Amino acid sequence: MRVQLMRSVLGDNSQIAQSNRQRWDEEGILALDFMGSPGSGKTSILERVVQELSARGISVKVIEGDVASANDAERIEAAGAEAFQINTGGGCHLHAGMVSRAMNELDLAGVDAIFIENVGNLVCPTAFKLGAHFRVVVASVPEGDDKPEKYPVAFREADVIILNKSDLLPYIPFDTERFWHLSDQLNSTAPRFTVSCASGEGIDELCEFIVEEIAKVKG
Amino acid sequence: MRVQLMRSVLGDNSQIAQSNRQRWDEEGILALDFMGSPGSGKTSILERVVQELSARGISVKVIEGDVASANDAERIEAAGAEAFQINTGGGCHLHAGMVSRAMNELDLAGVDAIFIENVGNLVCPTAFKLGAHFRVVVASVPEGDDKPEKYPVAFREADVIILNKSDLLPYIPFDTERFWHLSDQLNSTAPRFTVSCASGEGIDELCEFIVEEIAKVKG
Repeated sequence: MRVQLMRSVLGDNSQIAQSNRQRWDEEGILALDFMGSPGSGKTSILERVVQELSARGISVKVIEGDVASANDAERIEAAGAEAFQINTGGGCHLHAGMVSRAMNELDLAGVDAIFIENVGNLVCPTAFKLGAHFRVVVASVPEGDDKPEKYPVAFREADVIILNKSDLLPYIPFDTERFWHLSDQLNSTAPRFTVSCASGEGIDELCEFIVEEIAKVKG
Repeated sequence: MRVQLMRSVLGDNSQIAQSNRQRWDEEGILALDFMGSPGSGKTSILERVVQELSARGISVKVIEGDVASANDAERIEAAGAEAFQINTGGGCHLHAGMVSRAMNELDLAGVDAIFIENVGNLVCPTAFKLGAHFRVVVASVPEGDDKPEKYPVAFREADVIILNKSDLLPYIPFDTERFWHLSDQLNSTAPRFTVSCASGEGIDELCEFIVEEIAKVKG
């Protein structure tokens, strides 16, 4: 029999998330937390958005969360933004403390937006808010049109919903109307974007949204 | 400050997994645990395999694990096998006790194989063995060729590795050689299959493997 002292992990996380948010608000930095299945295309979207925003003179940094490897941080840096890679070493989500420590490693002077890519997982990250202004759920066409029904918490708690890989619609049975209907049943208020990193569809609209939200955070 | 009595959750799970395995061995039933990301195609593979094995007179039952909904169990029953749906209510993986209870609800007389579809998640299910003879990892082409490197535990601990959705290779940048090279670095012994539920590629080979393993379990 083992007796172990437990603190409320979620309570601690929530406090640190609030302090992350306060820091971003004070420094006028918009923060987005991208969640989605492995291979839903989170990094590809960030590559496109980083390129587009950099071309407009907007300063962006990225915090990459992965179980292992620095592949995603390397891709982001090749796209033109500084990236800080967190390896969770098996952990299935980022928590707010990891993000807080990562921010201490980044030079935030003049930064307009921080993008956080969570561990590829449509279940666990939903329970651990990081303090971001927007939690962005990325679903993709090859995953199937029933994902909102099967992973409802992620969609219910999302502040933005992205359907990615629209270029694959001709090759895959996917009922777009059904996807958005199921999504609307859980969350009818989150802004939605349909994008493709291959064709570029929707990237401009997504960047436009981010630029508007940066202006709001800067007040 | 809260003090809470903790038992070793993983230790308990391991004991129940061993008892599941003993029961399957005694009854001459082959058990396979399918793990993979949301939308990797676990249910589609099971639909095809169930149809093929049923046509050969092999009796199969399926235990479906999902955060929410009975979609997958309905699809399996439409394909011709009895299915028992477990909803974890937010839980990110099945554990052995859930499977043990599900088996008590199924009539196992004359059953040759049990397929368990784990919650769509490439991280958490790896830590909770269910007692199955084979842990099958399903990856899919749209997820990208770097998945073994990014989710190493799932590939390292797999007994069978399936690359699904090979029909999408013409439409997606995916380096098959790189995928299997990264996979081999973690696990060079697990049997591997490349399949497509759309074209039918590889389904026969996968079924042949299952039939041979059923014969071994029946001794």
